[in-house]
Amino acid sequence: MDFYFSQRGPSEALRACNLSAQVEAPVPASTIAGFRVLGGDGVSVEAPITWQHLAVLVGLSLLVKRRRLHWSCWNGVPGLLSPANFLEEEGNRGLVAAVFGILFSSLCVLVLDRDPLPLIARSSQKYWKILALLYYPAFYYPLIACATVRHRVSYLVGCLLSWCHCVVHIWQKVDCPQSPKIYRYYSTLSYIPIILCLVLLSLWYPALLIRSFTGQEETLDKEVMKIHGVAQGMVAWENPSMDLQCFQELSCPAAHLSLLSDTPLRFCLTGFRIPLKLVLSITTAVLAVYQVALLLLVAVVPTIQIVRAGMTKDIVILLVQFGLVPSESPAVPVVSPHSSTVCYICSLVLCCLLTCAMLLRTLVMHRNNLKALYQGAVLDVFYKAHILRPSRQAIVCWMSFAAFQTAFACLGLLIQQVIFFICSVGFTFLFIIPLQSGTNTYLFKIIQNMWPFWLTLVVAVIVQNLAAHYQFLEQHPLRKELTNRRALYIVTYLLFPINVLVGVLAGVWRMVISGLYNAVHFSQLDISLLNRSVETFDPGYHTYCHYLKIEVSQSHPVMKAFCLLLLQLARPEGPPGLQASNVEEGIQLMQPKKAPPSRARFKQTRARWWLAYTLLNNPSLTACRKTALSDPTANGTQLSSPKP
Amino acid sequence: MDFYFSQRGPSEALRACNLSAQVEAPVPASTIAGFRVLGGDGVSVEAPITWQHLAVLVGLSLLVKRRRLHWSCWNGVPGLLSPANFLEEEGNRGLVAAVFGILFSSLCVLVLDRDPLPLIARSSQKYWKILALLYYPAFYYPLIACATVRHRVSYLVGCLLSWCHCVVHIWQKVDCPQSPKIYRYYSTLSYIPIILCLVLLSLWYPALLIRSFTGQEETLDKEVMKIHGVAQGMVAWENPSMDLQCFQELSCPAAHLSLLSDTPLRFCLTGFRIPLKLVLSITTAVLAVYQVALLLLVAVVPTIQIVRAGMTKDIVILLVQFGLVPSESPAVPVVSPHSSTVCYICSLVLCCLLTCAMLLRTLVMHRNNLKALYQGAVLDVFYKAHILRPSRQAIVCWMSFAAFQTAFACLGLLIQQVIFFICSVGFTFLFIIPLQSGTNTYLFKIIQNMWPFWLTLVVAVIVQNLAAHYQFLEQHPLRKELTNRRALYIVTYLLFPINVLVGVLAGVWRMVISGLYNAVHFSQLDISLLNRSVETFDPGYHTYCHYLKIEVSQSHPVMKAFCLLLLQLARPEGPPGLQASNVEEGIQLMQPKKAPPSRARFKQTRARWWLAYTLLNNPSLTACRKTALSDPTANGTQLSSPKP
Repeated sequence: MDFYFSQRGPSEALRACNLSAQVEAPVPASTIAGFRVLGGDGVSVEAPITWQHLAVLVGLSLLVKRRRLHWSCWNGVPGLLSPANFLEEEGNRGLVAAVFGILFSSLCVLVLDRDPLPLIARSSQKYWKILALLYYPAFYYPLIACATVRHRVSYLVGCLLSWCHCVVHIWQKVDCPQSPKIYRYYSTLSYIPIILCLVLLSLWYPALLIRSFTGQEETLDKEVMKIHGVAQGMVAWENPSMDLQCFQELSCPAAHLSLLSDTPLRFCLTGFRIPLKLVLSITTAVLAVYQVALLLLVAVVPTIQIVRAGMTKDIVILLVQFGLVPSESPAVPVVSPHSSTVCYICSLVLCCLLTCAMLLRTLVMHRNNLKALYQGAVLDVFYKAHILRPSRQAIVCWMSFAAFQTAFACLGLLIQQVIFFICSVGFTFLFIIPLQSGTNTYLFKIIQNMWPFWLTLVVAVIVQNLAAHYQFLEQHPLRKELTNRRALYIVTYLLFPINVLVGVLAGVWRMVISGLYNAVHFSQLDISLLNRSVETFDPGYHTYCHYLKIEVSQSHPVMKAFCLLLLQLARPEGPPGLQASNVEEGIQLMQPKKAPPSRARFKQTRARWWLAYTLLNNPSLTACRKTALSDPTANGTQLSSPKP
Repeated sequence: MDFYFSQRGPSEALRACNLSAQVEAPVPASTIAGFRVLGGDGVSVEAPITWQHLAVLVGLSLLVKRRRLHWSCWNGVPGLLSPANFLEEEGNRGLVAAVFGILFSSLCVLVLDRDPLPLIARSSQKYWKILALLYYPAFYYPLIACATVRHRVSYLVGCLLSWCHCVVHIWQKVDCPQSPKIYRYYSTLSYIPIILCLVLLSLWYPALLIRSFTGQEETLDKEVMKIHGVAQGMVAWENPSMDLQCFQELSCPAAHLSLLSDTPLRFCLTGFRIPLKLVLSITTAVLAVYQVALLLLVAVVPTIQIVRAGMTKDIVILLVQFGLVPSESPAVPVVSPHSSTVCYICSLVLCCLLTCAMLLRTLVMHRNNLKALYQGAVLDVFYKAHILRPSRQAIVCWMSFAAFQTAFACLGLLIQQVIFFICSVGFTFLFIIPLQSGTNTYLFKIIQNMWPFWLTLVVAVIVQNLAAHYQFLEQHPLRKELTNRRALYIVTYLLFPINVLVGVLAGVWRMVISGLYNAVHFSQLDISLLNRSVETFDPGYHTYCHYLKIEVSQSHPVMKAFCLLLLQLARPEGPPGLQASNVEEGIQLMQPKKAPPSRARFKQTRARWWLAYTLLNNPSLTACRKTALSDPTANGTQLSSPKP
């Protein structure tokens, strides 16, 4: 809006801001600190307030970080403050998703706005716009960091911050709902996702604070967090297929995991949780659909109406010239006042629904892919065998996955809208309006004139099918055989020219279906738009494949369960509900109902397997094995201790 | 040309026909019988001559057919006259391909011509055009049938026919090389493939005739033909994978097939022959590329030149309005007189080369696919397991395969031309011409203004890659591990907005690459343009898959070899060079060099396997087994007879 200040002068901008009924009220925005709320004199008031606000936030986060460092020193967790544990599932998923939604919506505002940073004047915008790409994540950083610290004070700070943000944004939009940008309510509408996400945060933090006072979730969260301390030291899953098979062969220790019934891990193992990173990407993608659809709606519909109003007569003349409209008709129904607008909005709604459906389908496919990869069925997911271990490329792809998903949703919606709008306008003007007005246009005449041609093609295809079924295929009781070969060759030769014309139609269908398929599935990263032999050249699919590798290698449920078991073994006094006795109980549950032939041997085998399995996947533990887990036999005995 | 008669009157049409230097000569065409050669009074002369010619052809072919019936009664080959044995490789491949080329070129002429049939007047064209689709294959039928009869008389008739056709066509085009259709030499140029194919036929038939007098090829051809008599009675290959593995386990009887060294079968087994049907489809596809390119060249280039000549000033004004050209420049270089024509021709040449390259690639891929399927590696070719047996759908697809390949080559060339022309024009007008003229256009200004943006994106990607390699990936000696997780999460969070912008670029790239890939590979039927999970919805790939099934099930080289062996066993006196002694020799060749541990058992196993294999795949032989092959043991002993 500063842009408009500079363009039109303050008085006009004020008028633009107060286009609504609140003209008589003074501009109250300067009373609210920072947050790009405009005072009458713009930047000079805003800049120091925003700096002050930022300093408070940074100071607070440093304070929290120091506490965190202390706390983490006690428990061996790396002390760096993390905004979101994307791989570790215990976080507040809704909260993280809301912050990412705010971030993306700010990016949308930023790209279209000509005043990128609240604290910088209107000179040299492009550099500040680039800087703003890094500024906004840092600006909203405390909102997400307060939740990951897991302390009452941080929750309280989070409450205050989210309330503050939320109130300021709502106040700003209620105070000045209109702006002269594109469409007068566009700015307000594009801020709705930010406000909704802030409302969610404003409710989430108090809930966390209250829950921290009741104290139910605290110990459990800490327990689960420590798994990741161990998991971080563990090596990536090398060969999940073999491991999981071994696991299952040993009479299903999945039952053994019933001792985890109180933790989210159990849900993770049985109910299957979609990874946080995917939740984030879907959230931002849905917001992207909203923002792009909003932009397409408010930017194009008025243009269409203006064009239609101004060019009605010209269009009619053009249509008559192209022979689409008979010249004698009054042509009023042809350029029906709202047909193009209706087409546009219908296709936009269809595009939004399709894109959202594809995003949901991504969730389902991702769930299936993850399950298949956890079970080692690599070839069910990838066309070629992949090694599921982290690599440089995989990490980069994992980092950019959510952003790519969001960007692809934007582009996919745009492409679909262009295609569907053209199709719907063509369909309306070539079929529906001529049918309504009862006039025969050029297209209908072509179709009418060519009916013998279509009939010939249909008859030829039917004849070939019938001949193939009744003449060239001998219905042998055991199997089908080819027969009447020479007649087959003659028919093939004679129908060659007609089949070429059928082939042209099939080719057109191939073009249409591949174009439509690619447009509709553009927003899905989990399928490649290229042929399977070159599918990794598709940047979207390439990113997804590598993302999947990291997800599978780093958050295999069996690995998580083992981490928990190891933690319990190292500290038998553990949290309530996860005592060593429970491990015993789990092992008892695991025993088969009828007596096995050689029980001692079975137990020994299992113990050895557990040890080998742990050490195989944790070579780093080998060094400290003699101290932590005194010796292999003892460890095995400890796990499969004397049974009543 | 009759169309032009009716439109312009005979005198003008004569003038059009005699535009060349032969104006003083009288029109000699009416002296030549039929063949759409125009006399001065057009149709009235032509129709009865064509009917007469057709009657001669039909009578001749009926005569030949009766001879064939007699001949086939002697030898058990089904008596129906077949134009081409597409599945049986022994045919004269070049000859068949030439006739199909003539057929397709006639179709091209037919579609664009408004005078479809030579014997019908210019009334009710569309019905006669449809009828012509069936007329032309029947018209050229004798040309192909004379070769398949395999007799001297038929070769002689073939010589006469092809010479007659060839002379008439060449005479017609020399006499009247110009026509007022589209472009004056278009008709002549589009007839060149027909004339070339007829020249090929005119040389091929005499060669066949001469070879039939020398008598070398006769017996061998007959021998090979009889294989297919047996093969026709045989059942389709049920499970090539198992069979071929058994085959290989039994110390490679492929060596055993060295006894076939004199027959084309050996070449078929070792050198690998591309099926006749595929040769046909590639031939007609190449002709299709020629015809479409010719049409694109002669129909569009004059239009471009006319448009350019007429609209030079308008285009300049338009370009200036769009800001592509600075208004102060004289703008002469912008609309360089030949730039658009050069773009058009360059892109056309590129398209033709690309399409031909893709057709060659089809050959290579087909060879690989067939080899893989012969070895039973179904999953190397198809994404899902297929049963390789004939079905109604497979037969229909097999019948229309060559026609589809041709039609897809036409459409693919058209699509590529549209895309490449637009791209090359855009590239020329936005990059090359501004660079030449030294003026900064709008596009250059955008790129110049946005360099900090591009730099930011590049730096962000490089930073992520470096960080992933040096910070987040622990270079463990054994395997790579993920480390510094919390820093990874922070970087992921902070770079999210920049990654969204990178994702937009990746999305644009995805769009471009998938569009280009699909356009370039449109003419290839052996790859699907859709994702692998829905790839059979692509009509081209669907046709190819089914075509492949028929090819593999009906012409497996092992099956062919067995047919030959069976024929020899049934008739040991057989043709020279294929005596029973040769079978013995082949079996001796098959023996391993060093003595096997249990030779007798090995031989017995092999004999039993051979018997079981033959009977398994030929249930129809079970009934006559006691008579033809006296008993299992005898048969086994016969095959693995006493070794010296």
